[in-house]
Amino acid sequence: MTRRILITIEYDGTNYSGWQVQENGPSIQEEIEKALFKAEKRTISITGAGRTDAGVHARGQCANFDTESKIPVEKYPFVLNALLPHDISVSKALEVPLGFSARFCAESKIYTYRIYNRRQPNALKSRFFHHVPMPLDIDKMRLCADFIVGEHDFTAFSAAGGTHKSPVRKVYSIDIVKDGDDILISVFGSGFLYNMVRIIAGTLIAAGLDKISPNIVEQAFITNDRRLLGATAPAKGLELTKVNYSPKDLQEEHNVRIP
Amino acid sequence: MTRRILITIEYDGTNYSGWQVQENGPSIQEEIEKALFKAEKRTISITGAGRTDAGVHARGQCANFDTESKIPVEKYPFVLNALLPHDISVSKALEVPLGFSARFCAESKIYTYRIYNRRQPNALKSRFFHHVPMPLDIDKMRLCADFIVGEHDFTAFSAAGGTHKSPVRKVYSIDIVKDGDDILISVFGSGFLYNMVRIIAGTLIAAGLDKISPNIVEQAFITNDRRLLGATAPAKGLELTKVNYSPKDLQEEHNVRIP
Repeated sequence: MTRRILITIEYDGTNYSGWQVQENGPSIQEEIEKALFKAEKRTISITGAGRTDAGVHARGQCANFDTESKIPVEKYPFVLNALLPHDISVSKALEVPLGFSARFCAESKIYTYRIYNRRQPNALKSRFFHHVPMPLDIDKMRLCADFIVGEHDFTAFSAAGGTHKSPVRKVYSIDIVKDGDDILISVFGSGFLYNMVRIIAGTLIAAGLDKISPNIVEQAFITNDRRLLGATAPAKGLELTKVNYSPKDLQEEHNVRIP
Repeated sequence: MTRRILITIEYDGTNYSGWQVQENGPSIQEEIEKALFKAEKRTISITGAGRTDAGVHARGQCANFDTESKIPVEKYPFVLNALLPHDISVSKALEVPLGFSARFCAESKIYTYRIYNRRQPNALKSRFFHHVPMPLDIDKMRLCADFIVGEHDFTAFSAAGGTHKSPVRKVYSIDIVKDGDDILISVFGSGFLYNMVRIIAGTLIAAGLDKISPNIVEQAFITNDRRLLGATAPAKGLELTKVNYSPKDLQEEHNVRIP
């Protein structure tokens, strides 16, 4: 009997070339597929909710795969964590309907971008934070974020190389929290173009450093001119925090399945 | 003119054999001395407030060195951070009297021990946290901590290999804070024997797992029997958070110095 399993994955992306299998280094997807091969003695492909770039981290990446095994679904985190390297872990596993797709059923995502803002670098934060040595004006960052929130053509906020049909996305909210030297930017949206969150972070940083005016964003939406915005912020500050699915899509259809 | 400089240091100890220069791998002390050699073109020895073991981290390690250079004291963090690897950083530098010693003037220290307490390991915490998969009873941990606080002969809480004259130490406080899956233990004391904080952490964990009775500590103080207590908790959960000096010891004696 084929079952489809949805797993939630955490990773420290520092030592990986990204989510997707690549020529130039080990990928997260590859490591999980290797662990599944060891567990089930057959080749299993997984589908992630979205790709993450080299160096990007995740607290709530999601992926699904199909299995013929008899491993109870709740045992998958134990089985996989015993086989995965220390910088990748599986926090949850759930059986989902065979029609479910971690990628296409994703309704919204939350990303977190982490900055630490003090003159000197900090060895304890170098893996998960982007260091900005000059003081950031949080009020200006928030003002700029207000212009980004909403449904827009985000072409100006995307890097070349994306393969999206439509550049229109909806950003529901951007929360900016300061805690000592740390600044956490939480971006909640329907979906994101290639590099979109890192360009949002870089634009908020540029606004916070007074290098651009917060309302330049309005002009970028009209002209689609990437150059009006801030630089793409470094990968290591970015984390895919959560992928949201509708309970309906996740629901098991035990009642209609013929064993 | 000789000046004595006190620096505050942060490090991710994962890739080091500890603070002290060792045969079996790079040490923090060595990396800082190498950076000083590059900056000043002469060999400079540094004195740390205390040694930390392989894998132990620091947010507030302190060390002093003497210099004949003309580098303004406030420039040392910039100079050293430009030369140090990413997992070591200098947050502060201060000129101190020539009689000052980071080691002997240390009046008290704060260590933090980090645990995360959930069934599955977490890739994002594997560097700085010790994973305890079974549920910990925080109330029992706090009860046990109350028995440890105070002035005692801490022989039972020390590993062989220490070279201390007296095993009497004063623990001023142990605070245990739970934040989601994270448990942070903050230990504030006059000084610590070899492995003492890791044995305190291991004992609190054993009490929290109901493997030992919280008041067994009283018996350990009487019998000096290390075996009554919990296992030495892993190095990676430990951080030297702060070293306290008296303002009097730190004070510059510019008025008595003859230039």
